[in-house]
Amino acid sequence: MLNPSSPLFTDLYQLTMMQSYRQVGLDQRYACFDLFFRRGPFGGGYAVWAGINDALDYLATTKFLPAELDYLRSLKLFDESFIAYLKDFRFKGDIYSLPEGTIVFPYEPLMRIQGPLADCQLVETAILNIVNFQTLIATKAARICREAGEDNVMEFGLRRAQGRDGGLHASRAAYLGGCKATSNVEAGQLFDLPVCGTHSHAWVMAHEDELTAFRHYVAIYPHNSVLLVDTYDTLKSGVPHAITVAQELKAKGLNLMGIRLDSGDLAYLSRQARQMLDAAGFNQVKIIVSGDLDEWIVRDLRQQGACIDSYGIGTKLVTGQDDPSLTGVYKLSALQNPDHTWQLCHKIAEGGRKSTFPGLKQIWRLTDKQHHLMGDVIELEGIDLNAQNEFTATHPFDTYQKIHYQKQQRGSCTPLLTKVMDQGKILMSPENIHQCRQKIKQQLNDLDPTFTRLLNPHIYKVSLGPELFAITNKMRGRHLAASTVQNLD
Amino acid sequence: MLNPSSPLFTDLYQLTMMQSYRQVGLDQRYACFDLFFRRGPFGGGYAVWAGINDALDYLATTKFLPAELDYLRSLKLFDESFIAYLKDFRFKGDIYSLPEGTIVFPYEPLMRIQGPLADCQLVETAILNIVNFQTLIATKAARICREAGEDNVMEFGLRRAQGRDGGLHASRAAYLGGCKATSNVEAGQLFDLPVCGTHSHAWVMAHEDELTAFRHYVAIYPHNSVLLVDTYDTLKSGVPHAITVAQELKAKGLNLMGIRLDSGDLAYLSRQARQMLDAAGFNQVKIIVSGDLDEWIVRDLRQQGACIDSYGIGTKLVTGQDDPSLTGVYKLSALQNPDHTWQLCHKIAEGGRKSTFPGLKQIWRLTDKQHHLMGDVIELEGIDLNAQNEFTATHPFDTYQKIHYQKQQRGSCTPLLTKVMDQGKILMSPENIHQCRQKIKQQLNDLDPTFTRLLNPHIYKVSLGPELFAITNKMRGRHLAASTVQNLD
Repeated sequence: MLNPSSPLFTDLYQLTMMQSYRQVGLDQRYACFDLFFRRGPFGGGYAVWAGINDALDYLATTKFLPAELDYLRSLKLFDESFIAYLKDFRFKGDIYSLPEGTIVFPYEPLMRIQGPLADCQLVETAILNIVNFQTLIATKAARICREAGEDNVMEFGLRRAQGRDGGLHASRAAYLGGCKATSNVEAGQLFDLPVCGTHSHAWVMAHEDELTAFRHYVAIYPHNSVLLVDTYDTLKSGVPHAITVAQELKAKGLNLMGIRLDSGDLAYLSRQARQMLDAAGFNQVKIIVSGDLDEWIVRDLRQQGACIDSYGIGTKLVTGQDDPSLTGVYKLSALQNPDHTWQLCHKIAEGGRKSTFPGLKQIWRLTDKQHHLMGDVIELEGIDLNAQNEFTATHPFDTYQKIHYQKQQRGSCTPLLTKVMDQGKILMSPENIHQCRQKIKQQLNDLDPTFTRLLNPHIYKVSLGPELFAITNKMRGRHLAASTVQNLD
Repeated sequence: MLNPSSPLFTDLYQLTMMQSYRQVGLDQRYACFDLFFRRGPFGGGYAVWAGINDALDYLATTKFLPAELDYLRSLKLFDESFIAYLKDFRFKGDIYSLPEGTIVFPYEPLMRIQGPLADCQLVETAILNIVNFQTLIATKAARICREAGEDNVMEFGLRRAQGRDGGLHASRAAYLGGCKATSNVEAGQLFDLPVCGTHSHAWVMAHEDELTAFRHYVAIYPHNSVLLVDTYDTLKSGVPHAITVAQELKAKGLNLMGIRLDSGDLAYLSRQARQMLDAAGFNQVKIIVSGDLDEWIVRDLRQQGACIDSYGIGTKLVTGQDDPSLTGVYKLSALQNPDHTWQLCHKIAEGGRKSTFPGLKQIWRLTDKQHHLMGDVIELEGIDLNAQNEFTATHPFDTYQKIHYQKQQRGSCTPLLTKVMDQGKILMSPENIHQCRQKIKQQLNDLDPTFTRLLNPHIYKVSLGPELFAITNKMRGRHLAASTVQNLD
């Protein structure tokens, strides 16, 4: 990666379309794109919105270097007038987004990208790449941490992450989602994350025997050593040697911090190790486990009564192993006419569920009087749902499903999308990562647990407001008659 | 990522162990680590070794910046003498590796990292991160491309990749594994890859109607337009409009290059579209498909007789969706004594299959007289298997399984590991990526198809040579008696 702000961080077709928009006079027409996903990752009911601040930093700084323009010229697809235009290109759009760390649901427009059509088109790929991945991993971390308990998951995934940057941003997103620390030192430095670690098998293997290895390690880190006990035999060798070392420390008035189990049956071994430690008087020595864990295994270990104080989780967390991509998409929803009225756009895809919703939209989050979330409603921008005493919202696809919201039953009705970038300039500094992490935890605690359940979660209600439903319905109907996009103003 | 060569691209425990090795006088002891994986990714029988050149570039340049040392100091884990030592740290090890693009199998030492113990320990995480991911994706690409046919897969995954660098290196690895081009422009520039693309739904939606959108696109790219036909209705709208445009082009003596199907039942739609195009006299118009494809779907489409000329594959390729991490590990296999003899190291893990093989090792690849691969044998370095008229090799774990190799039946017996780095200096320039890609294709063609089969592939024989088997057996036996590592020289 030579240029962190490179606009070549895109798909080729964005550039060929951009040149084409210029040739047909559409490039400066103001457009609105929505970013959304169609299903919660990992079979879950929600996602944790992350990556928006990195996306804004990229948008605010992206520009072509001369070598990049030379490269584009070499492809023989672009004319010189287009290359000259790219030379001065800066992203000049407006962005409306939810704040990082908002709990979000399928079909909600998480970001609205508004600006010249050419600008919005070029940056589609980069924005999706950044927010898809970070949202995915923040969500995975939240799922794992909620199963594990209180602040007891450490992220250890760098060696199995998808590239260095995949590791870096996974560590950041994992912390947002609830991990208490990472082993990734670079992520610690860049993002101000707590870092942690134990030692590896090599430390033990490099010594003549395991006991000497343990003694040497605690001599150097007397206050915070966690001894890896499975190099040879966990119960016959590792745990007894750890107990010997704990006794030697105790004689000096010190406590061994913990042991780590990294293979074998963790439910069985952790119970046996706990008994052995307790029998030797070391109730305070923690048991840390690692080795291909995820939220399902953590839940299972707890249900079996495994004696585990904390979890080191790598591969399955930082890659989102069982669902390694968020299916975020970026779809045109409106295009300004030369007279500045908006022409609404939508896509009717095979089967209906891949269709899009037209227009500039806002998300309203409704709570009951106890601050529990009741549901979200997507409505056209400019319509104040909070001012309405009652309204009916409709399921995005199963249009016979309606919900009637009455003000007297509600606690609040709050718009979620705010303007975060104005003509390419970032409007506010990002929230502190530690506060953002707390905010995520709070929101998840405010959701009814049926929504955060791992298996077959309760579906959170996301509906269309009355105006958006009316216009969507009208356009779908017209489309079925005419198979074209209509100007509906 | 501030410093491309940052040694902070590591896990914290590598640094705490490094400091500890110094304190117990082991840091400059010469060590040998092996890098290997224990199972082929995606349930397959092989992997395509990739990323080694990037790993070498990192090792040759890694050094601490002052700000990085300040950060480490701030952690209050490291003493000033260690920080001063890190200030002058350069990786001074030797690396033995297979060339990039070699087809490899479980348990083979793909890299031997030899050098001062502290150096080898620090770089473990970075090396694993780099080669695990690129090997994973090159393998996935090879699996897909072998099912798809001849040079007809394009990689379109950047928006769903795990971060920008995940996308970049996935594009490179996908090309190595057989893709003919990528949509990722930055990867095209940095790695000299062919780039390609079509247009998106937004292009169609930004026009008043689909036909106008198609007409405008081919007017700009008359020689290489591929029209996306599923924005409204593939067979009722998209394909008929594409045919209209093809007829208009034909009147000018030009040919429409192709259409792209991106949703719906691709087997059905591709056959219908082919019939419609053929009936209109456009047999030469290609049909490209995209949308959540992988090797299994490609195989299924071909078995159904789908009329598809090429495939655009994104998410499932660049993330290795069904198995998104190669389980490569890095294990100490030997440590020099002060008298420069080697002390062999191994790990006996629960269940045996996670045990490691001691010593400095070489891989020998045996072929028959028709150049088909017979099997690989891992033997201690310095033993020339090619000079032996016959020898018996043993299964790494099921030691009752033996193979007797006789010279008269063999074509060749070739050592695969060569020295590629000497005391931190790269010894040779990397192979051209296009030649490497061809070499991979050739090797896969030389393997019996039962080994590259998707479902339950034939297991390629990787065995231990006589000396390695003897020493491994002896150490395992002694360990079971004594539960310690023994000095066996």
